[in-house]
Amino acid sequence: MSVHAGLLRLATDGHGEVVDVTEGVRTIVERSGIRSGVAVVFAVGATVAITTIEHEPGAVSDLQALLERLIPAGAVYRHNELNADTNAHAHLSAALIGPSESIPIVDGALGLGTWQQVVLLDFDDRPRDRVVSVHVLG
Amino acid sequence: MSVHAGLLRLATDGHGEVVDVTEGVRTIVERSGIRSGVAVVFAVGATVAITTIEHEPGAVSDLQALLERLIPAGAVYRHNELNADTNAHAHLSAALIGPSESIPIVDGALGLGTWQQVVLLDFDDRPRDRVVSVHVLG
Amino acid sequence: MSVHAGLLRLATDGHGEVVDVTEGVRTIVERSGIRSGVAVVFAVGATVAITTIEHEPGAVSDLQALLERLIPAGAVYRHNELNADTNAHAHLSAALIGPSESIPIVDGALGLGTWQQVVLLDFDDRPRDRVVSVHVLG
Repeated sequence: MSVHAGLLRLATDGHGEVVDVTEGVRTIVERSGIRSGVAVVFAVGATVAITTIEHEPGAVSDLQALLERLIPAGAVYRHNELNADTNAHAHLSAALIGPSESIPIVDGALGLGTWQQVVLLDFDDRPRDRVVSVHVLG
Repeated sequence: MSVHAGLLRLATDGHGEVVDVTEGVRTIVERSGIRSGVAVVFAVGATVAITTIEHEPGAVSDLQALLERLIPAGAVYRHNELNADTNAHAHLSAALIGPSESIPIVDGALGLGTWQQVVLLDFDDRPRDRVVSVHVLG
Repeated sequence: MSVHAGLLRLATDGHGEVVDVTEGVRTIVERSGIRSGVAVVFAVGATVAITTIEHEPGAVSDLQALLERLIPAGAVYRHNELNADTNAHAHLSAALIGPSESIPIVDGALGLGTWQQVVLLDFDDRPRDRVVSVHVLG
């Protein structure tokens, strides 16, 4: 077995932007030469998260609306009060979704479903430069 | 270190069915011969997810009721409008729970709690044939 | 590649306590000598979970309030009725957050964001002795 590491760097608008990082992950997996294993995808930062979804405008919009409904940006939060901050909802959404997913590699390709993409969600309330860490194990 | 890959194939009824896949994961781990490492369990598809729960009728029923309360199947969603589809709630539930979990292997056995099972949740609104990818690393 | 396993043992108060386990994970990673790879962190038990968050009093309090709002401890649950139990909400919160996260190791250090800590959430309704399993792969 071996390990290959890569980084994806991207600029986001924040505010719940959902970025498809599948091609970036695929490139790192292909460069690794690993035929069977997993790609561990991790969003660096406390207000970003990783999951999979069908990355089409409807599902993306629905996911953003869901999180705004469950965790409204404008509600009263202790994080904001104690730290003179405005992004408590972003911390909560990121903690709920979680920062990592592990994607299988089968015959050298990502073992995703047909309509399943790997996405980064940036919940912060301002544009951010983001790093996604990808470790290919296999 | 080495990597061993296996697939679990199962037919589900969809509609939030919660399937205990622990025995299937355990079988793949035992065949691998790996004594210390992790089993990466991944649900292939955009409307399925993996987590752990006590797989007894009460907790399963409560989890289904929770997700229906948070993400009602009958609400208005852009995914359904734009794609003439009916399973937007399934996409959202799957994205919220996430497709992968990594289960520790300790002394050749799954390092789960006594009441903790690995489950696949199928949120789609029709019966489906599903694949769960298991990679054993160790 | 190699694998190194460690366990963190901790006593919690339950009731949604959020414990920062970053230092414990870091110690196991440093002892492994692994410079590039991942640390797979897994909470053993059906009423605990792992995620990342900024571990400061405001965000911790907000996360506890969010989960109590989404999954109230005092609601009626089938798990409690069928098993004469009182912690159904703990099972549901744990299943929603999930038991595992994989943290990247870059140049021998945890590749977390500046304000991002690895936390265990104990949702049970009584104090518990907990085990967190950490496997370092790289």
